[in-house]
Amino acid sequence: MPKFPEFAERTKYVQGSVFEKFRPKMQQMGANLVKLHIGDTYLAPTYSIPIDENFIQNNEGFNRYCDTLGIYPLREALSEKVNSDNQLKANPDQLLMTCGATNALNTSVQGLVNPGEDVIVLTPAWPFFKGMVTIAGGNVIEVPLYIRLYREPKLDVLDYLESFCTSKTVALYLNTPNNPSGKVLNSSQLQQIADFAQKHRLWIISDEAYDGMTYDNHNHISVGSLPGMYSQTISIFTFSKVFMFSGLRLGYIVAGESTIKNLNKMMVHQLYSPSTISQQMMVEPVKNRTQWRDAFVKHCHELRDMFITNLKISPQIPEGSYYLFFSIEDHFKGRGYSEVIDECLEKGVSVAPGNDFGKDFPDYIRICFTGENPERLEIAINRLNEIFPV
Amino acid sequence: MPKFPEFAERTKYVQGSVFEKFRPKMQQMGANLVKLHIGDTYLAPTYSIPIDENFIQNNEGFNRYCDTLGIYPLREALSEKVNSDNQLKANPDQLLMTCGATNALNTSVQGLVNPGEDVIVLTPAWPFFKGMVTIAGGNVIEVPLYIRLYREPKLDVLDYLESFCTSKTVALYLNTPNNPSGKVLNSSQLQQIADFAQKHRLWIISDEAYDGMTYDNHNHISVGSLPGMYSQTISIFTFSKVFMFSGLRLGYIVAGESTIKNLNKMMVHQLYSPSTISQQMMVEPVKNRTQWRDAFVKHCHELRDMFITNLKISPQIPEGSYYLFFSIEDHFKGRGYSEVIDECLEKGVSVAPGNDFGKDFPDYIRICFTGENPERLEIAINRLNEIFPV
Repeated sequence: MPKFPEFAERTKYVQGSVFEKFRPKMQQMGANLVKLHIGDTYLAPTYSIPIDENFIQNNEGFNRYCDTLGIYPLREALSEKVNSDNQLKANPDQLLMTCGATNALNTSVQGLVNPGEDVIVLTPAWPFFKGMVTIAGGNVIEVPLYIRLYREPKLDVLDYLESFCTSKTVALYLNTPNNPSGKVLNSSQLQQIADFAQKHRLWIISDEAYDGMTYDNHNHISVGSLPGMYSQTISIFTFSKVFMFSGLRLGYIVAGESTIKNLNKMMVHQLYSPSTISQQMMVEPVKNRTQWRDAFVKHCHELRDMFITNLKISPQIPEGSYYLFFSIEDHFKGRGYSEVIDECLEKGVSVAPGNDFGKDFPDYIRICFTGENPERLEIAINRLNEIFPV
Repeated sequence: MPKFPEFAERTKYVQGSVFEKFRPKMQQMGANLVKLHIGDTYLAPTYSIPIDENFIQNNEGFNRYCDTLGIYPLREALSEKVNSDNQLKANPDQLLMTCGATNALNTSVQGLVNPGEDVIVLTPAWPFFKGMVTIAGGNVIEVPLYIRLYREPKLDVLDYLESFCTSKTVALYLNTPNNPSGKVLNSSQLQQIADFAQKHRLWIISDEAYDGMTYDNHNHISVGSLPGMYSQTISIFTFSKVFMFSGLRLGYIVAGESTIKNLNKMMVHQLYSPSTISQQMMVEPVKNRTQWRDAFVKHCHELRDMFITNLKISPQIPEGSYYLFFSIEDHFKGRGYSEVIDECLEKGVSVAPGNDFGKDFPDYIRICFTGENPERLEIAINRLNEIFPV
């Protein structure tokens, strides 16, 4: 019994920020540390942020509670956006504004997963998703896929997934463009995942946080746009990545109307609604996204290439998102994993540990190639070359 | 099994916004409707909101992820505030910034309550709290208290609570100043609740959303400031009420350091952290709160008195918060409850139904006396007098 001073059991099965354990050493390093451990961009939003006296005057109710689905003008603008950019045929009532993709994912898990049920998590995967399933009482079935698709693009995905499906499986967590591997699934690969979901009547929780952030000839396809998949998919987007505004904590869900209604019930119990003023701030940037988005993605592309060209170690070239994810096993030289991570911190680069992204990646690290300005990134590359020589 | 198109069981046991059911009729009434159903203030914040070009320049990282506990400058300012205003001896690491009090409450329930355990909810109570307990798999034990304390201020609270405690009870939900009854508990009443919690080793989840909003000679006392109660209490505050900024979705928890760490684990899985820029916006208003707060509370006091003086029906005079909560049973005249609520909407005043605040209040309604400007409130009073004549 969690009577005082005990806590609920679920607090024992999940961790807080995966970076928490490195906090003391990171603080010790101070400003010299180039921080590449977190997924963020050094750039402030490149579009105009309309927060001034005029904005306050013109946005009635900016300080007040709003419709728990989100403010209508933003849902209307996003409806146009997902129809046009993602081929998702959503009207404004098929959109639910959330406090970032994190909140959208947790809301989805709470709305879909009963205790004792299984969720397939394609890995490597963003660490908190597994914790969400655990908190809901569900079981995570890790299925390593994204890295393998770099090597085997023609893999029979449908057949491969089959062996992981149990009688208790209710949902599959998909994340393309993928964090941390940078893999962007093509239409054939996505169609097989859709076929698998339809065969077993699984919900797809589609994390599209890196929507629009693809390079070379890769394009992001929303799985919900495939034939018959719209109502079976919960498509999740954010303002934290291509909109460069993680500090706003705003995201949104696209789904069928009854799904939105059920997920909204879960969300209101977590935070009532996302911020009214934050939503009002994003209406114009959504509408004029074509004016600023490509330049930002081009800049990310350049930073990726700067890393790929200058790093001695040769990671798989990411097709999307803004991470490099690679094994450092060859650099252990008799040391343990955590000693190598510690060396990175001591030499002035923070990285995210791979084991948090799935049990199959105990010797990987993730770095974010947009986390600091280009001058600092160059310093980081030099330091990484010292730590990981060829 | 919640395979597509089914949802998780927990979606069936909770409702979304309690006002959802009235939406069609409210829309039908349009701008003529005086909206007193939601707890909000018509006033924009009376302090300066520093969102301008200068603010963006001076707040590095405004667009980026922040420490998941919240930004340090705000936790530092709030630490000073709770020490000085609430006698809570918290340092900045004993504060967790949340997405409103809603998020703070849900985080607390997730962090404390195992499935099958009981939570005592003193009623009438804010409706979503019960849903949070249900979502966590806990059982709600409703204990009607606040209204009774108006009639029986000397009630033996300790003895009264005793009969509701089971071997599975782990926490008690306290909300003073109370929404919806306006009751502000005095030190003797609070001490008895503290004694009860200490006797049974119960956590106290102390919802202090209406901190600072008290009238006449009533003062808000934080139960966590009573001897020995700090570490056993989760004290919850918000920027939605006396700060007049519900649209910012910002709140905070004050608790012991190990409690903060465990609750933070739950919060990061719900939304990672509250908005960085929102937190930066509130540092100065916290620091200069004495310059603007009293005038706002005085204005609420005047609006309360305007209702009390001019309403024909005589509700209990609220000691704090900004609601009137009263029985309309005498006005049924052979009609059902929902017909009377419908009459309110048809005659142009929206109210919140009492049954959502607890099973003992099936014939009550709640109105918020700060929800619209004074001219509109006068119209509402006239309409209410027509609906509820003496």
